[in-house]
Amino acid sequence: MVKPIKITHVSKTFGKQQVLDDINLTIEPETIYGLLGRNGAGKSTLFNIITNRLPLTRGEVTIGGQSVTNNDAVLNRIYLMSEANLYPSRMRVEDIFKLTKQLYQGMDEKLTQSLTQQFGLNSHARFNKLSTGSRSIMKLIIALAVDVDYVILDEPTLGLDANHRRMFYDALLDSYAKRPRSFVISTHLIEEVSQLIERVWVLQDHRIMIDETTEEMLNKGYAITGPINDVSTYTAGLNVIGHEELGHLVVHYVYGDLDNDRPIPDTISISHIDLQRLFIYLTNQEVAKVEN
Amino acid sequence: MVKPIKITHVSKTFGKQQVLDDINLTIEPETIYGLLGRNGAGKSTLFNIITNRLPLTRGEVTIGGQSVTNNDAVLNRIYLMSEANLYPSRMRVEDIFKLTKQLYQGMDEKLTQSLTQQFGLNSHARFNKLSTGSRSIMKLIIALAVDVDYVILDEPTLGLDANHRRMFYDALLDSYAKRPRSFVISTHLIEEVSQLIERVWVLQDHRIMIDETTEEMLNKGYAITGPINDVSTYTAGLNVIGHEELGHLVVHYVYGDLDNDRPIPDTISISHIDLQRLFIYLTNQEVAKVEN
Repeated sequence: MVKPIKITHVSKTFGKQQVLDDINLTIEPETIYGLLGRNGAGKSTLFNIITNRLPLTRGEVTIGGQSVTNNDAVLNRIYLMSEANLYPSRMRVEDIFKLTKQLYQGMDEKLTQSLTQQFGLNSHARFNKLSTGSRSIMKLIIALAVDVDYVILDEPTLGLDANHRRMFYDALLDSYAKRPRSFVISTHLIEEVSQLIERVWVLQDHRIMIDETTEEMLNKGYAITGPINDVSTYTAGLNVIGHEELGHLVVHYVYGDLDNDRPIPDTISISHIDLQRLFIYLTNQEVAKVEN
Repeated sequence: MVKPIKITHVSKTFGKQQVLDDINLTIEPETIYGLLGRNGAGKSTLFNIITNRLPLTRGEVTIGGQSVTNNDAVLNRIYLMSEANLYPSRMRVEDIFKLTKQLYQGMDEKLTQSLTQQFGLNSHARFNKLSTGSRSIMKLIIALAVDVDYVILDEPTLGLDANHRRMFYDALLDSYAKRPRSFVISTHLIEEVSQLIERVWVLQDHRIMIDETTEEMLNKGYAITGPINDVSTYTAGLNVIGHEELGHLVVHYVYGDLDNDRPIPDTISISHIDLQRLFIYLTNQEVAKVEN
């Protein structure tokens, strides 16, 4: 039976710089997570720690009680797709597929072939001759076809056009339906993955700011629109994370519960907001400062 | 008075490979264009030809009747932001700003300063020490602040997080309102720029497939949803560019006029679709083949 990955009190410093501060997360089996954070928030560092590519400063990462540190048997169950290019640069795509199959417990050859064809990837090409987009495609094919319990995808769609991104999301869901396992996806294209991910982690100021199901999170995000006085009165004391002016009207964005006892004036309207907008306001420190 | 840029019968081959085939476009003053195309469609090649960084095989690019070829006076009016890094790698950001100011007719120092602060860019940093995201930010600041009549942006938001992307779109609109000029934006994040661009060019199979206002284009895109027989009957003979199954229902995507004389059965619903989806179906050759 597949055990969860437990990330317990993990911190990481580079010299004097704290990059991760007391991270506690659980990656459950058969669940799709989104790790969201601003540029430089520490997402890639966290992924490299989970897969033992970087040493941690404090804390531990375990699977079924076993530390991942230098534990090949356990690390073989996790595949990390990242910007790093770990293959001999002159190796051909088809040979990289073969090598991966040997390094891990196996690789779905039928899926590899059908995705290679679908994405129009030339499997005879040498890795160093591939464009950025084609490199992403090769790595995505490996990530979906390799036989592991945990797949970690760091900016998987970098450089992919809209058609290829959509093909990838479809292929991921299809692969997940046939062989449920855990995915952790880090991306700046938040709105595009909002339908895929079941649980959202937001990494901000080196800590986990949010660890909720996507549904819970979306349910807590509101846009309150109306004349400034009515909106301000209604949102006083609520967790206002941002605001905008729309001509004569204002919009206050709220994250958290509304006050059910508070009367809602006819002049204001309340609606939910999408995940990307919610993320933007939650992680926009300048706006947050204005609000405080 | 600012003259349009005219791209007339432009073709480009690399060896035996045809990359651009008889491109005819006009960049009017004070207009924002989106150049959309799949990976490898030739977008960057076209930009490099417009700015005389690459020689063309046939045709010409002119401004007010003057060819851009080796014509510095004319080329000084166009700024191309691209992935290419043209600066001495150890130069500091602030010195790159100064150099740009000298190379072009000038640069808005106040805007440069305020954007540098807003995006949190360290202007003392050396170029080679900047992350991919920070390099994009530096180039975007130059592109918005430099005094030219035409700004060409090739994948401007590569590596930027959602907050920075939004900040950039806002800054672009703000700058355009204060000093109207032409922008040509190439991006894979189509939905995010659909509000910005007034006119859409789609480059497909080395040719311009679409040259329309954004509004015209959106008006021609339809999703016809319903039971398969009713939908197929209704869309027979129309320009069906894609289809999807949704449980028992199907969706046919149509680009072009519907037939007003054709009765619409109660079982089907007709709605418009967004620009990104429209692009995906128009440029998805596999689907197009299925339809033919």
